[in-house]
Amino acid sequence: MSDEKTPEMTPERVEAMLTRGPFHQWLGLKVVAVHPDGIELKATWREEWVVNPDRRYTHGGILAALVDLAADWAMVAKTGRGVPTIDLRVDYHAAAMPGDLTAKGKVIRMGGQFSTAEAQIFDQAGKLLASGRGTYFTAPPKA
Amino acid sequence: MSDEKTPEMTPERVEAMLTRGPFHQWLGLKVVAVHPDGIELKATWREEWVVNPDRRYTHGGILAALVDLAADWAMVAKTGRGVPTIDLRVDYHAAAMPGDLTAKGKVIRMGGQFSTAEAQIFDQAGKLLASGRGTYFTAPPKA
Amino acid sequence: MSDEKTPEMTPERVEAMLTRGPFHQWLGLKVVAVHPDGIELKATWREEWVVNPDRRYTHGGILAALVDLAADWAMVAKTGRGVPTIDLRVDYHAAAMPGDLTAKGKVIRMGGQFSTAEAQIFDQAGKLLASGRGTYFTAPPKA
Amino acid sequence: MSDEKTPEMTPERVEAMLTRGPFHQWLGLKVVAVHPDGIELKATWREEWVVNPDRRYTHGGILAALVDLAADWAMVAKTGRGVPTIDLRVDYHAAAMPGDLTAKGKVIRMGGQFSTAEAQIFDQAGKLLASGRGTYFTAPPKA
Repeated sequence: MSDEKTPEMTPERVEAMLTRGPFHQWLGLKVVAVHPDGIELKATWREEWVVNPDRRYTHGGILAALVDLAADWAMVAKTGRGVPTIDLRVDYHAAAMPGDLTAKGKVIRMGGQFSTAEAQIFDQAGKLLASGRGTYFTAPPKA
Repeated sequence: MSDEKTPEMTPERVEAMLTRGPFHQWLGLKVVAVHPDGIELKATWREEWVVNPDRRYTHGGILAALVDLAADWAMVAKTGRGVPTIDLRVDYHAAAMPGDLTAKGKVIRMGGQFSTAEAQIFDQAGKLLASGRGTYFTAPPKA
Repeated sequence: MSDEKTPEMTPERVEAMLTRGPFHQWLGLKVVAVHPDGIELKATWREEWVVNPDRRYTHGGILAALVDLAADWAMVAKTGRGVPTIDLRVDYHAAAMPGDLTAKGKVIRMGGQFSTAEAQIFDQAGKLLASGRGTYFTAPPKA
Repeated sequence: MSDEKTPEMTPERVEAMLTRGPFHQWLGLKVVAVHPDGIELKATWREEWVVNPDRRYTHGGILAALVDLAADWAMVAKTGRGVPTIDLRVDYHAAAMPGDLTAKGKVIRMGGQFSTAEAQIFDQAGKLLASGRGTYFTAPPKA
């Protein structure tokens, strides 16, 4: 998909694309902002995220999904769509207690065949909970 | 927790520990086998896993959660519990179509402070969908 | 490069290809074995590998280079050549004391555009020092 | 080592610590700047870095070593020393042609037991060649 033909990627438009997916609906995703080289998402906490019934923190798989999502869709202004994830790294910095999460994604390097992007996950007090990066398959779709 | 005091980690016992967590219940986790250096889990497909409503494959975040879970609990025979994830790497090999998933975790190196374990995710036909590894914090809990 | 045209990848042939590179010469690489899905290399210790002049262990960058090399060339039976590394993960398990190192690489998944392979690094007593995995660009070279 | 007792980490002081190691000498490391949360290093190109004798680019293992070094020593203002690497991720963005390299390291999260830092590698024209992140063991040394 050439940049020229990509319609403007407003938060509303990207949110409409994103929330077609049942998993994205389940995560309660909202698109807060779309920049030329990044994106900011919000995810809505739900009881099923909890891994430890006593200490009540969120499972790292949810944070991994959000790192992947924000890094992937950081490239939407360039690609006009989500792109396949090739691999992902996530670092866990602090326990995620119940509450909505903010995910900020940023392009590190945009390439013709594959690209690198990173993301950070914050709680509502702005505390960094997790961060990571992934490699994405950004070759244009075959006609 | 010393090895001496750890009760025998049967699949039933580990499944009872695992499924106390709401996220683990949501994943429909079953413990198929527990080995001295590994574990085999099964997760029960659900509609909310789907990321792409047209092509119907499962979101990579679910696969990441299962890589993390299987690698983490691969150490249960040694630790008697799940342990905090420090970081995680996931490689995606093929689209995960609707259906239950099998996750096999294996210890790479058990250490006093932190340990490394790996996992593979298969569909019900035995196709490798994803694999990865993580670093886990295995220092004994403070008394 | 199609499999049909790839000449047989004997250890001698792969070693001759590998050791054209000055860095590979500096590492004192020898090819011990070539399998359909893997390779075994040996690297010759040298004083310049030492990072800590008191404790005398080898720098992790040398181990990272060997993980990358063994994972990359694990695919040589399929590709007939080394392939570009897209990204790499390395886990460090034990200090590498002075002495030659063995690196075993194995294909995890061979793909058309990109592939995943892993490697383990051992000392001469067979102790696991490091392990890791990488994503490699395995699209056929353009004619 | 408590922060209070750490002597001021000037570039000269850190360079003197770093260049005690034979591998660091071989890399021709210079310390350009030390910040509270980061470091800038320079490495001096040498012929042995070349992996491909025709196209003349530097082996990814050298870039991995520099990502590790810059991320590790980004914490020197806090730790007063280099710290053990637990694991490392490196993404390769462009071929590194002959010439000196600049490595910028930055702390992502400083923890009591383990910490996360990242690094970027640039050529002398300021082109981003590689980037990555690692987990480091930052527990205080035992008395």
